[in-house]
Amino acid sequence: MAKEVTNRKENYSQWYNDLVVKADLADNSAVRGCMIIKPYGYAIWEKMRDQLDRMIKATGHVNAYFPLFIPKSFFSREASHVEGFAKECAIVTHYRLKNSPDGKGIVVDEDARLEEELIVRPTSETIIWNTYKGWIQSYRDLPILINQWANVVRWEMRTRLFLRTAEFLWQEGHTAHATEAEAIEETEKIINLYAEFAEQYMAMPVIKGRKTENERFAGAVDTYTFEAMMQDGKALQAGTSHFLGQNFAKAFDVKFATKEGNLDYVWATSWGVTTRLMGALVMAHSDDNGLVLPPRLAPIHAVIVPIYQKTEHLSLLAEKILPLKKELEAKGLTVKFDDRDTVKPGFKFAEHELKGIPVRIAMGPRDLENGTVEIARRDTLEKKTCPLSEAVGIVTSLMDEIQNNIYQKAFEFRKANTYTTDSYQQFKEILDKGGFIMAHWDGTSETEERIKEETKATIRCIPFDAPEEDGKCILTGKPSKKRVLFARAY
Amino acid sequence: MAKEVTNRKENYSQWYNDLVVKADLADNSAVRGCMIIKPYGYAIWEKMRDQLDRMIKATGHVNAYFPLFIPKSFFSREASHVEGFAKECAIVTHYRLKNSPDGKGIVVDEDARLEEELIVRPTSETIIWNTYKGWIQSYRDLPILINQWANVVRWEMRTRLFLRTAEFLWQEGHTAHATEAEAIEETEKIINLYAEFAEQYMAMPVIKGRKTENERFAGAVDTYTFEAMMQDGKALQAGTSHFLGQNFAKAFDVKFATKEGNLDYVWATSWGVTTRLMGALVMAHSDDNGLVLPPRLAPIHAVIVPIYQKTEHLSLLAEKILPLKKELEAKGLTVKFDDRDTVKPGFKFAEHELKGIPVRIAMGPRDLENGTVEIARRDTLEKKTCPLSEAVGIVTSLMDEIQNNIYQKAFEFRKANTYTTDSYQQFKEILDKGGFIMAHWDGTSETEERIKEETKATIRCIPFDAPEEDGKCILTGKPSKKRVLFARAY
Repeated sequence: MAKEVTNRKENYSQWYNDLVVKADLADNSAVRGCMIIKPYGYAIWEKMRDQLDRMIKATGHVNAYFPLFIPKSFFSREASHVEGFAKECAIVTHYRLKNSPDGKGIVVDEDARLEEELIVRPTSETIIWNTYKGWIQSYRDLPILINQWANVVRWEMRTRLFLRTAEFLWQEGHTAHATEAEAIEETEKIINLYAEFAEQYMAMPVIKGRKTENERFAGAVDTYTFEAMMQDGKALQAGTSHFLGQNFAKAFDVKFATKEGNLDYVWATSWGVTTRLMGALVMAHSDDNGLVLPPRLAPIHAVIVPIYQKTEHLSLLAEKILPLKKELEAKGLTVKFDDRDTVKPGFKFAEHELKGIPVRIAMGPRDLENGTVEIARRDTLEKKTCPLSEAVGIVTSLMDEIQNNIYQKAFEFRKANTYTTDSYQQFKEILDKGGFIMAHWDGTSETEERIKEETKATIRCIPFDAPEEDGKCILTGKPSKKRVLFARAY
Repeated sequence: MAKEVTNRKENYSQWYNDLVVKADLADNSAVRGCMIIKPYGYAIWEKMRDQLDRMIKATGHVNAYFPLFIPKSFFSREASHVEGFAKECAIVTHYRLKNSPDGKGIVVDEDARLEEELIVRPTSETIIWNTYKGWIQSYRDLPILINQWANVVRWEMRTRLFLRTAEFLWQEGHTAHATEAEAIEETEKIINLYAEFAEQYMAMPVIKGRKTENERFAGAVDTYTFEAMMQDGKALQAGTSHFLGQNFAKAFDVKFATKEGNLDYVWATSWGVTTRLMGALVMAHSDDNGLVLPPRLAPIHAVIVPIYQKTEHLSLLAEKILPLKKELEAKGLTVKFDDRDTVKPGFKFAEHELKGIPVRIAMGPRDLENGTVEIARRDTLEKKTCPLSEAVGIVTSLMDEIQNNIYQKAFEFRKANTYTTDSYQQFKEILDKGGFIMAHWDGTSETEERIKEETKATIRCIPFDAPEEDGKCILTGKPSKKRVLFARAY
C-alpha cells in the first residue's frame, strides 16, 4: 500500500495529497472545493477538538451557537471587514425550488427571491456583534467569553484538502470586554493557549508573533499568529487571535455603562483555528511510509497483529493477545487487535504505517514459544523483541517517548532550516531550498509587497521574542530595530 | 424573575417561549427562522450530544463530515425524496459580491452566478449516497456505519425556538448494508437506542412505533418514530429511524459484489435527532417557576447559596461551603458557589429555579451555629434542613431520586391522559382537552386525512407493542386489527 504514496522529495505537494486520501483522512466531494472528512480523519479532528474545547473551557469560555446565515447588509457595517470577507462567499438568494416546466428535474422558483440576500458565514463577527448589542448594557454584563464550533464557507478558487477548502470546520471565539487592557490580555492568552496545544498535543513547535498591517485580519487592530514549519521549509499559519479594538462595537453600536457611570464602546477579540490544523499535522511529521501521528492525537495508540499460518494458531495467539490488549486499555490506551484473515501481515503492517498508528505489536509462533512480542514504533520504524511480561510497560512509556521524539525532530528540523541573513541574494537562495529567514525590514507595506513579488516570501510574523537589534532592511537598507520572520507559506 | 414567566395553564405556548428565552436557552436572531443557542442552552445540548455520541459509537458507528452544499440535480434522483425535501430550502446561486455602483454597500455580482445552484443541505442522503458509490464495490466494504453531527436548513414558514427552526443542529446516521434483514435490524436498533436515551437521560417516557405511509420520510420504505407527550397532552415526534430499502442505492447506482458473486443494490438506513429534543425536554418537565432539568443532563447539578448580612459572615460561610463543594465535585457533580454580592438570596433562588438546577443548598448564620444546611430540590420544591455532615450523601442520592421522580411524573401524566375509545364523538372531546388516543383505523390514507381535517389529530404511530385486536375504524367503521396512536402534535 505504502508504495502508492508519492515520495516526499519527488513531489511534496503530491505526497501530501496522496497521504490525505490514502490514509483515509479526507477526500474531494462532488461539490467544488468542499471536502469529505472521512471517519479516520474525523476521529483525529475529534481528538483535537475535544482537547482544544477542554482548554478553551478551562480558561473560562463557554460555547454557544449563532446562525449560519448573515444578512448581506451586516457586512457593510465594518468598512475594512467587508473588503476582507464579503467578496468571495456563498450567497443565498432564493428559498424555494419548483418542478421544471419541461418536466425534467427542478428549477429555482423566481417568486421565492429573498428581500435581502443571506451570506453563508465566512466568519461570525457581524452576526455576533449584532447579537451582543442586545446582551450588553452595563459593565456587569462583561466580559462575555463565548466560543463557537461551526462550519464556515469562503469561496476559494484554488483548494487543497484541509489546507484551503471552501467549507471548513473551526472554532471561533468572540469576546467582549470593558477595557482595552483586558481585551489585549485575552488576545495574548489565546495565542498562548493555541501554541501550547500545538506544541503539547500536535508535537509541532511554533513561533508566536504579531502580523504586519498587510496580513492583519480585516477589521482587527492587531492580529497575533502562530506559525509552524512544514517539512519543505514552508510556513503554515496555524491559527490567529485578533484584538479588534472597538471596531465592531462601533459598527454595531454596542455601548455599555461603565463602573464610573459613563457610556463607552465595548472592546473585542476574536480568534480561531480550523481543520487546517489537520493539514499541518500531516505535513509536519509524516514520511514516505505514511502518517506519523503524535500519540496524544492518535485515534488508535497501538495495534496488535497475530502472525500465523493455521487457524488454530490464531486462537493460541489470541489467548495471549487479548489479556495484553485489556491491560493496555486499562492504562488508557486505545488498542486494536487486527485479526483479519483476509489480508497478510505484511499488508497489515504497511496499512498501519500508512495510518500512523504509533506502536505496532506483532506476535507469532516463535514468540509464543519464547514468551515474547515484537514491538515496532512508527516514528523511527525501530523494532525490538521483548518479553511479553514487559510489553505493557514498554508500550505505555513509548507513548511519551514518541510524543517527545516527534516534537524534538520537528524542532531540530526547524532549527536546521532557520537562517539569519543580511544579504538579499542569500535571502533568495535560502527561499529556493526552503526555510525560515530572520531578516531586517524597514516596517513599510511597500517593502513587504515588493519582497513578496520578487521572492514569493511574506512576513509570517514579528516574533514576540525577537530581540531589539539595530540593522538595515534587507531590501531597502533603511534602518530597522528588529528582525522579522520571512518565509514562503501555505 | 420567575414572575415574568407566563402561567402554563393560561397560555402554554407563551409559557414555553418565555421559559426558553428567560432561562437563557435560546433566542431569535436577526435572520428569519434562525435561532441563537445561548451558552446555557448549548451546555444542555452538549450533554445530550455527548451522551448520544457515546451510545452511537458504542453500537459500532463512526463519525464523519460531508459537505454543507448539495448540487441541485442530486435531489431529482430519488423521486419521492425531491417532493419531500427539495422545495422549501436555502438556495445558493452566486459566489461573489461587489461594491454597489452607487457606492452604498454591496450587491450580488451577477457575473458570479453558479452553473448549477447549490442547496444548503436539508438532510444528506443524496450527497452521502453519491459518495458511497465510490466507497462500495464488494460485500467486504459493508456495512458502512456512519454518523454525522451537523447543521441543516429547511425553510420553515412558521418557526418556534428549538421546535421548528429554519436552521437546526442534529445528528444524521447513514448506513449501508449487504442485506435487507441487516438494514431493518439497524433501523430497529437505532429507534431502541433513541428511546433508551429519551427515557434514561431526558427522563421522558416514549412510545415507539411505525409511521403510516402519509407520515413516512420522503424516500423511505418504512419510518420508525418515538413519540412523547407534552404537558398540554400534545404529542412531539422526538426522532425517527428510516429503513430506506434500496431506493437511494438505485437512485445513485450503488451496487456491490455479493459473497455469492452477484451484483446487487446496497440496502440503506438513515436516522436522526435534532435540537428539537431541547424543546421536548423543556415542555415535558418544566413548571411555572421555570425549567426542571433531569440531573443527567443538567449543566450544573447543585448550587450553594450563602445567606449573610455582613461581608465577614461570607468568609465564615465560605470556610464551610468550599470543602462541601469540593466533596460534591469529587462525587462527579458540577457545583456552583453563588457568592455574588450584587443580588439578594431571594433573587438567586428564583434564578436557580428558573434555570432548573436540580438541587439548591443554602447556608446562613444559624446553619453555621447548628452545623446544618438547607437542601431544596427543584422537582418538588421541597426543602429540608439537615446536618452538614450528611449533605454530600443526601445531595448525591437526590440526583438519582430526582431523575427517577421526573420520569415517573411524566409517565403518570401520560398514563392519566391516554385514552382508549371507539366513539368518534368522544375522540373529538378528548382531543380538545388534550391527550393520546388509542383507536381503531381502517388503514387507508383517505381516512387518516379526513380525521386530520376534522380534528387536527394525526396518527403519531402504529405502536410496536399494540396488541392484535379486532375492531372497527373510529371514522368509517371498517374492520381494523390493531389500535393506533392518535394525537394532535407539535
